[in-house]
Amino acid sequence: MSKYWSELTKKLVPYVPGEQPKDKKYIKLNTNECPYPPSPKVLEAIKNAANADLRLYPAPECDDLRKTIADFYGIKMEEVYIGNGSDEILAFAFQAFFNPGEKVLFPDITYSFYPVYCELYNIDYETIPLDEDFNVPTQMFLRENGGIIISNPKAPTAKYMSLDEIKTILDYNSEKVVIIDEAYIDFGGESAVGLIKDYPNLLVAQTLSKSRSLAGLRVGLVIGNKELIDGIIRVKNSFNSYTIDRLAMVGAIEAFKDTEYFEDIRQKVINTREWVSKELREMGFVVLDSKANFVFISNDKVDAETIFKSLKEKGILVRYFKKPRIDNFLRVSIGTDEEMREFVAALREII
Amino acid sequence: MSKYWSELTKKLVPYVPGEQPKDKKYIKLNTNECPYPPSPKVLEAIKNAANADLRLYPAPECDDLRKTIADFYGIKMEEVYIGNGSDEILAFAFQAFFNPGEKVLFPDITYSFYPVYCELYNIDYETIPLDEDFNVPTQMFLRENGGIIISNPKAPTAKYMSLDEIKTILDYNSEKVVIIDEAYIDFGGESAVGLIKDYPNLLVAQTLSKSRSLAGLRVGLVIGNKELIDGIIRVKNSFNSYTIDRLAMVGAIEAFKDTEYFEDIRQKVINTREWVSKELREMGFVVLDSKANFVFISNDKVDAETIFKSLKEKGILVRYFKKPRIDNFLRVSIGTDEEMREFVAALREII
Repeated sequence: MSKYWSELTKKLVPYVPGEQPKDKKYIKLNTNECPYPPSPKVLEAIKNAANADLRLYPAPECDDLRKTIADFYGIKMEEVYIGNGSDEILAFAFQAFFNPGEKVLFPDITYSFYPVYCELYNIDYETIPLDEDFNVPTQMFLRENGGIIISNPKAPTAKYMSLDEIKTILDYNSEKVVIIDEAYIDFGGESAVGLIKDYPNLLVAQTLSKSRSLAGLRVGLVIGNKELIDGIIRVKNSFNSYTIDRLAMVGAIEAFKDTEYFEDIRQKVINTREWVSKELREMGFVVLDSKANFVFISNDKVDAETIFKSLKEKGILVRYFKKPRIDNFLRVSIGTDEEMREFVAALREII
Repeated sequence: MSKYWSELTKKLVPYVPGEQPKDKKYIKLNTNECPYPPSPKVLEAIKNAANADLRLYPAPECDDLRKTIADFYGIKMEEVYIGNGSDEILAFAFQAFFNPGEKVLFPDITYSFYPVYCELYNIDYETIPLDEDFNVPTQMFLRENGGIIISNPKAPTAKYMSLDEIKTILDYNSEKVVIIDEAYIDFGGESAVGLIKDYPNLLVAQTLSKSRSLAGLRVGLVIGNKELIDGIIRVKNSFNSYTIDRLAMVGAIEAFKDTEYFEDIRQKVINTREWVSKELREMGFVVLDSKANFVFISNDKVDAETIFKSLKEKGILVRYFKKPRIDNFLRVSIGTDEEMREFVAALREII
């Protein structure tokens, strides 16, 4: 605490990302990165862009990248916007659409950044308890609110809610912005992007950090009605004119153009997730149905924190959230088949 | 305007960066970029980093880069922080140190992003009029306030204030944070970085966009007491865990290591600025004394807006601010000698 900090800063409880210890080489299953490298075309494009033009500011609104993504989804460029990771996009969206004094709703178990944004922008919120099976109780979102944000598939449970459930929420809340955070949508779920033409209150956020293997490049995107996109642009242009550098821009364009590579690696992750889930269940673990690139697991014989620590000793990092309702669960990112075989073998030794 | 926008967003008047028209090839003297390419070592490092590791998140606190910059300035790593351009750093600093209801002071003629940040974070401000020669009236900053921000050299006038003047302001305002925005410091001014050991209330912001030729990479930095740096980290970690991508990080490290290249290009820019200033004065222009990579000029025969438009027709972009007190001035970035010869020749035709 410092006397120079603003009252806001004194109150903040920042988000804590997954650890990146450097004491030894770990199998890293704790931050939901993709185990496969980015498309070779992405790397090639970046190398070509490492040239004298880096002296020049990038395109402030990333129009070429927006066009590429719009083409991918069959929508208009004006319905897409780009951010420095989907985290930046979400932060802008909280400022752009939510008002202090009007409670934003999100599930009690969710991406832990949402309450942090509320604190940062002085926005009130109320959490809606997931049911016992960690499903979203759709009916509880049909009430007065200042906006809604739900991740789908959900962080950190990996569970997926159907577009019909999302439509129910969108229909009821037609005067409020509903954000669907689809960081993990490419691993088996159906995207809500197709709904934006019918719902001017819908914003869909995605990221290149997971299914496009580009966590190190910092690119996220958001899709919605032009009016909503314009709101985000207003906030961004009051914060930082250029948040996407020239290299990230060309890399992201190639990532969306190389659909063959994208299909290949996301299918590989899905296949690995399926055999790992089956094997863990056979070992007696509870494994929630996952449509993400991670699984959320629990064991009734050995508590999660013990497993977490034992795995770390064995050189395997997973994510443990010491929080109510989920403090006996572990979130395990899907690695390569080989990494997951080592993970399963380590678990066998522990339990 | 949209019914979905927050009350804040409806009120925002975003910053407008210099135009980037694409209708033809321009000599671009309007956004203060460096006319020389980045160091070849920067480009090499980026090419090498375009590899499979891009699938992994970057180091969240950019420790290697912080260490490199700390070594460059002979300070501690804990006294440096990195942002996505100095704009992001400044935005974080406004949130971290300034409180609503306490008026932040800055000159009336300054970087036009400062009032935008105040609007974005609901911070009150008061502008202090520069004197007739566009100098900072130091005495007027010795009064109650909620914090101070001054660019030095000043945007958009290019004028420089001495460290003694800055010390006077720091001494009086020891309980408030004083930010010196040194985006242009490497073109002849003396940095205030050396003062941080004596002034725990001093923050110095810099950028790699100008003297390091890396506007396209989006890296800025801030230097100050560890307590202040920790305040900025708290805000950043409540906004976006990783704002600097892996490529920007390695590029920025090399930019600070290659001191020979840095010295060479900043000297070239200074030399060009000096002959251009002399020549313009001989042509009858008012040219404010510049310690930046641009000059602020005025002519009493032809008004600035006319010159601006005529230059654009001739394929030369400069910056014109239609604002009180400076609406007969043009801000002209220093390009290569050849570009500036074309610029001077075009001016001769116009006046």
